[in-house]
Amino acid sequence: MQEPAPKRGRGRRPAAEVRQDVYSAVGPILLNEGMGQLSFERVAREAGVSKTTLYRWWPSLGVLILDCYVHAVENELAFNDSGDIKADLTSQLTAFTRVMTKTRGGRVLTELIGAAQTDPELAAEYRRLYSSVRRQAAVKRLAKAQEDGQIREETNLESMVDQLWGAVYHRVLIPDLPVTQTFIDALVGNLLSGTAHSRNPNHLS
Amino acid sequence: MQEPAPKRGRGRRPAAEVRQDVYSAVGPILLNEGMGQLSFERVAREAGVSKTTLYRWWPSLGVLILDCYVHAVENELAFNDSGDIKADLTSQLTAFTRVMTKTRGGRVLTELIGAAQTDPELAAEYRRLYSSVRRQAAVKRLAKAQEDGQIREETNLESMVDQLWGAVYHRVLIPDLPVTQTFIDALVGNLLSGTAHSRNPNHLS
Repeated sequence: MQEPAPKRGRGRRPAAEVRQDVYSAVGPILLNEGMGQLSFERVAREAGVSKTTLYRWWPSLGVLILDCYVHAVENELAFNDSGDIKADLTSQLTAFTRVMTKTRGGRVLTELIGAAQTDPELAAEYRRLYSSVRRQAAVKRLAKAQEDGQIREETNLESMVDQLWGAVYHRVLIPDLPVTQTFIDALVGNLLSGTAHSRNPNHLS
Repeated sequence: MQEPAPKRGRGRRPAAEVRQDVYSAVGPILLNEGMGQLSFERVAREAGVSKTTLYRWWPSLGVLILDCYVHAVENELAFNDSGDIKADLTSQLTAFTRVMTKTRGGRVLTELIGAAQTDPELAAEYRRLYSSVRRQAAVKRLAKAQEDGQIREETNLESMVDQLWGAVYHRVLIPDLPVTQTFIDALVGNLLSGTAHSRNPNHLS
């Protein structure tokens, strides 16, 4: 991060520009091929950046891959605010599911989560670079819906994140059942409308 | 599985008895120590069973560990039917969370899920021996609540499984936030009662 001021005389380019080259080179590889064929060598070659520079900014290949993944999907996973939380949750979850199940990027993420179970450093970077950022974006959209009077004030929004995106992760990581549009619609419908039978309120005090 | 009839003359014990010895020996180790120190050698020694027998019934150490884990937790994770689905979900999720966060068994499970991301055989055995069985038990209890008129008839019960236990797995596998009693209560409350503001039904058609 503490890149010295660029010395153009020696041909060194600005840090932000180099990072962007790495993101641009690696992102499409992750989404199209997955992470199996990636190495520091290949990233250096494809991005036109020295390995020394890569090592300075990314402590491990896992973290480099994660950082590139984050940048590769951030536009696709952005939250829309149409004013209708049900529609916006459905469309974001549909886009998220597409990335997770229709691109090789989904495999990248599940393999990183898998590796993180026995690699505390990777787990910490995963939370810092990806999951906490995604969680924050989701809570922000839900909080807006709360302000708009579409979600009840007392609702625990953080738990909603686990009951929507966490539920999708559950099926992706432990694929007893597929992630379909019917599933996404059920997640949103169940959580917004509730599953309890309203004519039996005594049991749901 | 196709153990020949026991030949007591040669000292061979019934298959079910030997399996039970393995479960009894390995279960407490998994819950108290985790899986780090386990090997076929140690299981053979602790259970008093030959390695040949172990290899015959369990194709890999991961599958043996998984099978023993299933038997070690099945009583604790049993579903109660008090007639009140909200109370029963809360108590089962509390017991499940205790196993996942307060015993070493939780680590066993998350490490097996992690390994399964790059090991298709382990993933298949995980689903066969554990997750599909747990899912079935949960759906059975939810279906009973549906019969009892506590859950609406059109509810997708499979999705509820992902929104309760899947939500807990999400926090255990990607621990941005801890699994607390407040979280469990929010999961059950959100899902049964719904999070949408009832005075704003237009947005939730």
